[in-house]
Amino acid sequence: MLCAVRCELTYDVTTTTDLILNIEAQRSDRQHILDEHFSMSPQTATAIHEMPESGNRYRRARLEPGRHVIHYDAKLELVPQLRDVSGVGAVPIADLPFDVLPHLYPSRYCPSDRLAPFAWREFANLGNGHEKVQAICNWIYDNVDYLAGSSDGSTSAYDTFTLRAGVCRDFAHLGITLTRAVGIPARFVSAYAVDLVPQDFHAVFEAYLDGGWYLFDATRLCPLDGIAKIAIGRDAADSAFATYFGDLSGPPKLLEVTRLDGPRIEPQWTTLAVSLGAT
Amino acid sequence: MLCAVRCELTYDVTTTTDLILNIEAQRSDRQHILDEHFSMSPQTATAIHEMPESGNRYRRARLEPGRHVIHYDAKLELVPQLRDVSGVGAVPIADLPFDVLPHLYPSRYCPSDRLAPFAWREFANLGNGHEKVQAICNWIYDNVDYLAGSSDGSTSAYDTFTLRAGVCRDFAHLGITLTRAVGIPARFVSAYAVDLVPQDFHAVFEAYLDGGWYLFDATRLCPLDGIAKIAIGRDAADSAFATYFGDLSGPPKLLEVTRLDGPRIEPQWTTLAVSLGAT
Amino acid sequence: MLCAVRCELTYDVTTTTDLILNIEAQRSDRQHILDEHFSMSPQTATAIHEMPESGNRYRRARLEPGRHVIHYDAKLELVPQLRDVSGVGAVPIADLPFDVLPHLYPSRYCPSDRLAPFAWREFANLGNGHEKVQAICNWIYDNVDYLAGSSDGSTSAYDTFTLRAGVCRDFAHLGITLTRAVGIPARFVSAYAVDLVPQDFHAVFEAYLDGGWYLFDATRLCPLDGIAKIAIGRDAADSAFATYFGDLSGPPKLLEVTRLDGPRIEPQWTTLAVSLGAT
Amino acid sequence: MLCAVRCELTYDVTTTTDLILNIEAQRSDRQHILDEHFSMSPQTATAIHEMPESGNRYRRARLEPGRHVIHYDAKLELVPQLRDVSGVGAVPIADLPFDVLPHLYPSRYCPSDRLAPFAWREFANLGNGHEKVQAICNWIYDNVDYLAGSSDGSTSAYDTFTLRAGVCRDFAHLGITLTRAVGIPARFVSAYAVDLVPQDFHAVFEAYLDGGWYLFDATRLCPLDGIAKIAIGRDAADSAFATYFGDLSGPPKLLEVTRLDGPRIEPQWTTLAVSLGAT
Repeated sequence: MLCAVRCELTYDVTTTTDLILNIEAQRSDRQHILDEHFSMSPQTATAIHEMPESGNRYRRARLEPGRHVIHYDAKLELVPQLRDVSGVGAVPIADLPFDVLPHLYPSRYCPSDRLAPFAWREFANLGNGHEKVQAICNWIYDNVDYLAGSSDGSTSAYDTFTLRAGVCRDFAHLGITLTRAVGIPARFVSAYAVDLVPQDFHAVFEAYLDGGWYLFDATRLCPLDGIAKIAIGRDAADSAFATYFGDLSGPPKLLEVTRLDGPRIEPQWTTLAVSLGAT
Repeated sequence: MLCAVRCELTYDVTTTTDLILNIEAQRSDRQHILDEHFSMSPQTATAIHEMPESGNRYRRARLEPGRHVIHYDAKLELVPQLRDVSGVGAVPIADLPFDVLPHLYPSRYCPSDRLAPFAWREFANLGNGHEKVQAICNWIYDNVDYLAGSSDGSTSAYDTFTLRAGVCRDFAHLGITLTRAVGIPARFVSAYAVDLVPQDFHAVFEAYLDGGWYLFDATRLCPLDGIAKIAIGRDAADSAFATYFGDLSGPPKLLEVTRLDGPRIEPQWTTLAVSLGAT
Repeated sequence: MLCAVRCELTYDVTTTTDLILNIEAQRSDRQHILDEHFSMSPQTATAIHEMPESGNRYRRARLEPGRHVIHYDAKLELVPQLRDVSGVGAVPIADLPFDVLPHLYPSRYCPSDRLAPFAWREFANLGNGHEKVQAICNWIYDNVDYLAGSSDGSTSAYDTFTLRAGVCRDFAHLGITLTRAVGIPARFVSAYAVDLVPQDFHAVFEAYLDGGWYLFDATRLCPLDGIAKIAIGRDAADSAFATYFGDLSGPPKLLEVTRLDGPRIEPQWTTLAVSLGAT
Repeated sequence: MLCAVRCELTYDVTTTTDLILNIEAQRSDRQHILDEHFSMSPQTATAIHEMPESGNRYRRARLEPGRHVIHYDAKLELVPQLRDVSGVGAVPIADLPFDVLPHLYPSRYCPSDRLAPFAWREFANLGNGHEKVQAICNWIYDNVDYLAGSSDGSTSAYDTFTLRAGVCRDFAHLGITLTRAVGIPARFVSAYAVDLVPQDFHAVFEAYLDGGWYLFDATRLCPLDGIAKIAIGRDAADSAFATYFGDLSGPPKLLEVTRLDGPRIEPQWTTLAVSLGAT
């Protein structure tokens, strides 16, 4: 699928502020950047770094007081791998690559240690690896209300599990938590997503199964083949699209992700395993 | 300093269990392994992996039901870098290496986002980087009781801050949390420690300051020049000495860390900055 | 039913300590005290007070350093009201007595505000009042493991709901929390219980339904007609069998509750509504 | 002091809703109601009940769908007892009235059990009873930011202690928690307050000291002699000005509390102990 991304962030800065952006799409065999353009107004020096272990592309800038507008435009080709879920099992712990192991451990927003009794009781005996994670997503979809404003930056999956409401980030955190809790590595994915209403940054997650990392989205808000990865991480703590040290006012974001061609495959959460590969 | 480590772990396994050990000392310019020996009884195949980004040495084994005894013996030479604290400042965010940035973010046991108001109010204006982290350690030492049994595997620094009691792991988590909260990267260190009474695995932390990573120990239980690093991580979630997937009974540990020579420099928490460098 | 209670508490006191006991059985139309005897060794002056609004009988003593042994023996006749559950509905909020209203509010261990979304989704449409609370008890029994040592004095129903393990006190707290969350007043009951293995103080709860307060026990550990009320309260915070201000070592308790006659009616959690009336 | 209260609450009700109001000022020897008037538009039948143990005046109404406006106007005479703080000590546990004891126990928003180690370390040895509670208020004032929007209905003193920000209700909860933690009974007070900017319902707390209940306000936002009690309770859970069961939109409140005469005594938090007596 071809898609176009247009992202505009505006910041009003009151004191010199260090900003770390993570809004540029990842590059991989299954996600080609055909064209992209980054600019800041007023023009500002930036340093960019692509993390070798994650593919995340961080860009750092020092903002002087005043209004700053950041533009990122890109044209992407998404070539997800699609497999029948019945062939995508879990990998035994003994066979997991060593660098995947950290994604089994609890993190700030995903305290998988605390939800393990529930996860084992509810999901441990359901199907193969992919079916198990799908069952987790189905459970979240059935039991948690998608409710704007119901959570904030301190909300962990522990809270979402109990309060039963959240937004995409909370759905992803709870999915990661329950997946790790049954012994399957999982990680957070921030993304651009076609067909998301209203348009905004999206959050989904990946589970490490037979053959690599597979996408899951418990919100069912957009098709999995229209997900363009920006960043991966243990959870939202290390995958924010913007981190700043100083004083600026919250970004009124302008975001457009447009499908340019390609068949829409839906609903992804029932029939196919989707992987954007890489890393 | 030369020191000898002797570690013996015993496990009674009831079902086939995957075990990931992280008990072998790190190798670095400032921590030389002069001699070491690992063995298991009954003899068991293991796979070992040294993580390039951390230097952690993981060893994986599959344990069949029965009693298993694990031995690790090593002779280490510790050559810490010692500097006057007045020369060890904080690094501006804009100048931090990109791969150090994740150690600014909150993690499972170190929710630095939630303790930021307190940390800023209390520590932000105290001295240069090293002095600031020392002030944090002093505050912890003065306000938190070291109390065996006062915490468990789910205790985060958020709890320790309020409950005011913990063990070495909790002291390290709270130190990391407050250090990150004032904008200084910090990470967890599991270690062998000479002169620790009673002998056990120890937990301390490192802050990233001018010139690299520096050691801190808010417990004041042992000299910083007698710390031999085993693993580093964001917090205890990814630095455990043993992680298992299956069913085994808790390890009655036998641990001896013996100083073989070298001058003892104390008390490290007031006069010198100590670094074990690396990574 | 006739039953005999024998309770012996031993305390080793190191500094002068104020002790408030609440171990003497309540008196009511449905719980007759045929005989009772309280004594302390060494003999100590005590003041006793029966709270008019709860019927709880508090006894206060000042203990000097040394060993103190407290004896309470009683012979009780329990005359519970037994009704068919189908006739026991919920009382509309508008018709609840004013003094019952506080039992709708969240308390220390029963944060009903936070579990309301789950409770409404799961239980709001199930049967009449008694059947609804029974459904809550059945859910707890099916989803929470009774596990000695899995909780402590700071564990709230919020934790038990997530961690899925607890003891009788946690089962009662979770029952109260979910019951309040669907708009039915509920309160904590500490009790002597026949047929409880091992013998110990027991915790159950009552819900306010048509006709008064009805007993529920999500643990299914003993028959409801063998429950002798000691104290009622919002939760364990105000219904402890002993509260002290000073320094004493935990009570090695000796407890015997013996059925002297009367038919055993079981299992109460499926066929009958049981009330011990009063207050 | 004479003061006039004018309170207007507007509710838009979508389904039949049971409303429990608690906005009518308490009556006591030290708080005289010279005149008062309650009305609802459209006219609605209400039942009113004055709780004997608290003096709280609850009014219950069933609201049909549509807009409802509630008016309460009163003219009050406040005759607080003023004493030199040096004469107001703590009451030994052994001498506390039995009905005051529940105010030593933790409640939903005031988990005094969890903050006890901090409270003992910080306040246990400071002055007599009144001075100790004043020290607690001073600590809160110095360490917690008054910040509108920084908390919500689920915020407990455990959170406020760590997050270091809150509104009047949070200041009161933290004050109650720390006071109970050092062994002094404390309770929540909802109130009308003169000179509060902006005008709103206020929350303060009372501690039980020698001679009865004394007022404290860690916010320092208004003079203690201008506090008119509405309700007392363990915490905000049982002292809300409005509780409803149904569906209505949040009340745009209109509140005016006007000083009609009388000397203003300030700042109360440093020189005098103030009691509104009663109950």
